[in-house]
Amino acid sequence: MYAESFAKLITELQKLPGIGPKSAQRLAFHLLGTSRKSIDELAAAMVLVKERMRYCSVCYNITDIDPCAVCADTSRDDGLLCVVAEPKDLVAIERSGVYNGKYHVLGGVISPLDGIEPESLRIKELINRLKQETISELVLAINPTTEGEATSFYLTRLIKPLGVKLTRIAFGLPVGADMDYADPATLSKSLEGRREVV
Amino acid sequence: MYAESFAKLITELQKLPGIGPKSAQRLAFHLLGTSRKSIDELAAAMVLVKERMRYCSVCYNITDIDPCAVCADTSRDDGLLCVVAEPKDLVAIERSGVYNGKYHVLGGVISPLDGIEPESLRIKELINRLKQETISELVLAINPTTEGEATSFYLTRLIKPLGVKLTRIAFGLPVGADMDYADPATLSKSLEGRREVV
Repeated sequence: MYAESFAKLITELQKLPGIGPKSAQRLAFHLLGTSRKSIDELAAAMVLVKERMRYCSVCYNITDIDPCAVCADTSRDDGLLCVVAEPKDLVAIERSGVYNGKYHVLGGVISPLDGIEPESLRIKELINRLKQETISELVLAINPTTEGEATSFYLTRLIKPLGVKLTRIAFGLPVGADMDYADPATLSKSLEGRREVV
Repeated sequence: MYAESFAKLITELQKLPGIGPKSAQRLAFHLLGTSRKSIDELAAAMVLVKERMRYCSVCYNITDIDPCAVCADTSRDDGLLCVVAEPKDLVAIERSGVYNGKYHVLGGVISPLDGIEPESLRIKELINRLKQETISELVLAINPTTEGEATSFYLTRLIKPLGVKLTRIAFGLPVGADMDYADPATLSKSLEGRREVV
């Protein structure tokens, strides 16, 4: 129905995650209506990311310099290592501004149904770091989803025998939440994680 | 927080309609994970659309040849002219397969709040076509939204005096709908548009 080049763009846009036929059509019309300059900028940004970005050889965060800015930062506590699933989790923790240690990015969570086995993640590399670096505390910061919990459990069994102090970030009521509206699983985590008032 | 080229891509993606910070981040990670070939194809498709696509000089549909495939189709009824707001409406009607006339694409609907006045649309061009071509019936096929209704009303006042037979597509219950769940405005249109059973 559409001209060939327009239909081709809709097809390409539909390959993106979360973009269905209607969104793809809307995006295509938007792109048609924007300036050639904006299009070139977007196209260039996509190509540049593919050319420049790689994984940090130390922590496996995405970066355009190796080692990444976090690993190269000498003001950070080398003894504190935080394990996250994805680069975006690292960014979320950095945004909170309270963590001053280093990171290790697994590259996902164990999910056999999606074909992600422990061997597909940077777990071997994590164990190597634990053996080579002097880590005083390893903080597991993996989402409390089914796959995330399974991954945390797998890592706990693997790391505990190495004698490293192992902690997990707290799960419970989010700030500003109403207990009455919290799901039972969150409330149960919140009770489990209760602390003595001092 | 992210490396410069990655942050730049997120910024560019956020300029797209319906793409917020989270979606932009997800798309950026997706693009990082796809092959260079896929990225190049998407980038090329965007640039090609901008280079090739233009408005048909007869009906103002988007096209890569001028006049467009619909206008150039001699098997179509030249006397029947359907007025739509956007190229995607033309495509929707073509998909139904029951219309065999020509089209005129306004390029939007009258919406003073968004700065779209009648002069911004291809209304002058429509009037010129009505004067120059031999049109036996003009079908208004504009969405029954507030702005769409206002546009249809505006066109009706303008075209009626020219003595052309003017019709509007029917509005009412969609096929497969349940009357009990239909909104009052739709049901009211549906009753207004009732026809004698023959």
